[in-house]
Amino acid sequence: MTKLIATWTMAKEAVAHGHLLLKKQMPSTEVIEQSIRIIEADARFHSVGYSGLPNAQGEVELDAAMMRGKDLSFGAVGALQRFKHPISIAKKLLEEPVNNFLVGQGAKTYALAHGFEEEDLLTPEAKSIYAQRTTQELTKLKAYDGHDTVGMVCLDHTSALCAGTSTSGLFMKHPGRIGDSPLIGSGLYCDDEVGGACATGLGEDLYKGCISFQIVSLMRMGASPMEACKIAIAQLSQTLKTKRGEHGDLSVVALAKDGTYGAASTMDIFPFCVDDEKDGSRVLLLHQNGTIQEADQAWMDNHLCD
Amino acid sequence: MTKLIATWTMAKEAVAHGHLLLKKQMPSTEVIEQSIRIIEADARFHSVGYSGLPNAQGEVELDAAMMRGKDLSFGAVGALQRFKHPISIAKKLLEEPVNNFLVGQGAKTYALAHGFEEEDLLTPEAKSIYAQRTTQELTKLKAYDGHDTVGMVCLDHTSALCAGTSTSGLFMKHPGRIGDSPLIGSGLYCDDEVGGACATGLGEDLYKGCISFQIVSLMRMGASPMEACKIAIAQLSQTLKTKRGEHGDLSVVALAKDGTYGAASTMDIFPFCVDDEKDGSRVLLLHQNGTIQEADQAWMDNHLCD
Repeated sequence: MTKLIATWTMAKEAVAHGHLLLKKQMPSTEVIEQSIRIIEADARFHSVGYSGLPNAQGEVELDAAMMRGKDLSFGAVGALQRFKHPISIAKKLLEEPVNNFLVGQGAKTYALAHGFEEEDLLTPEAKSIYAQRTTQELTKLKAYDGHDTVGMVCLDHTSALCAGTSTSGLFMKHPGRIGDSPLIGSGLYCDDEVGGACATGLGEDLYKGCISFQIVSLMRMGASPMEACKIAIAQLSQTLKTKRGEHGDLSVVALAKDGTYGAASTMDIFPFCVDDEKDGSRVLLLHQNGTIQEADQAWMDNHLCD
Repeated sequence: MTKLIATWTMAKEAVAHGHLLLKKQMPSTEVIEQSIRIIEADARFHSVGYSGLPNAQGEVELDAAMMRGKDLSFGAVGALQRFKHPISIAKKLLEEPVNNFLVGQGAKTYALAHGFEEEDLLTPEAKSIYAQRTTQELTKLKAYDGHDTVGMVCLDHTSALCAGTSTSGLFMKHPGRIGDSPLIGSGLYCDDEVGGACATGLGEDLYKGCISFQIVSLMRMGASPMEACKIAIAQLSQTLKTKRGEHGDLSVVALAKDGTYGAASTMDIFPFCVDDEKDGSRVLLLHQNGTIQEADQAWMDNHLCD
């Protein structure tokens, strides 16, 4: 049995591509890389890879990570400029004996030394969104804009799990800002003995709960992925509300080693993608009351870039 | 009741200074900052701050973080060059509404904008250690050298907890490499409702278990800090051995909200410092069989820089 789960409607085509790769018995690390590359390359999506929204200085800075469940190997890049496919650099770093998480100029040096090519990632459309924003008053900036990370967990035909994330981070972020996405245990976690999880939302809130590690821990103790996601989101949102008065959007997806999946969110509707051999690729909408329905064409037309 | 716990013998003087600050009823965030600054400024210590051992390119790059247990506020810097006191920049970042974890050039921009001054951190002695190392064969490099992070947890007179870390990271690391120290949940974690924990050792192994978050989670479920440290180290070292065949040094300290403390390590002898109102500041040696004894003068003379 194979399975793929990913955050947001924008992962639809990527997950469908992943379906084909899983059919060809590709390993989960390869499936995660190739699927996320599709989203990174797509100029329609302004929160991941090429055409991502820039930081406060107008520069596109990307974060990405990959974790392999077999041996807990981890690779990540943060605050990386001028490389379209940070997920591929993260995959390369996952194979290193140490130095698995590189940021900024050091990550760039590594990428160049390993044959990755630099390119300009700021598209005219992203530039224009940036220009509009900088002319507004700073007090009107919403901290929660443009943080739609793609997070993906894959179970391949050998039961090997892999989790991956990729994002341009918070729109208008401070240069060098690292969110939850490249942080092991926060943006993603994965262990073949149990399952994997990924998060999306406000990184500075998500990492306060090490939410992906927490979900895998709950699954380890016997919770289903759905229960684990619900408990972790309920706990973290309640803690943040009590201790800080508020919290940003928090959403998670999880996959158990038996192929069952889960999702939870503080949003009214949280869209995510699921793929398996039986039903193929689907976009599902998780409502605040816990019900899940398949997205219709109207949703897809209006929310493709979510 | 106040309490302070810190990793390694090198924290001895810092913890003694912290004792005086706690007597003056300083808040735990202030105590952590001021105490860690003493270690960062001390040229005898080559694994933290000024005089830290450089990366593979001969540049000193520092990581540091602070977490406040009251509201889970977090600040961190990574791969930061040319600032002697990264703990103070982390403390400043802890107060920001978002953008709490900054790396590389972006962190430098922030530091300069907030009045921190650049200086050269590479001392002649560190330079000479680097020069000797680079003339050796690369295959002889040990991945586990020079990673003695200072990690400190403080309970102040108002029962407010704070955890902090500071390190120059792995000696000869790749530029831009981020270890566990600035990662929330891995290098440190802290919650006033429960307690706090800090880790030191090989970051790439420690973060695979989100070990500080795990220790606080175990304490939340009722474990004493000593039990929580032991269980977390045993679990992670066993998992890494099973899944990867080996692991680097892993050591942790923890402090509960009631002032009880714990430590655990995979090393034969792990030195750590403890301070309270009753017994003052002491260096304790945790042996592999679980016994703890106070360090004598001979130990102090031979292991001050550990």
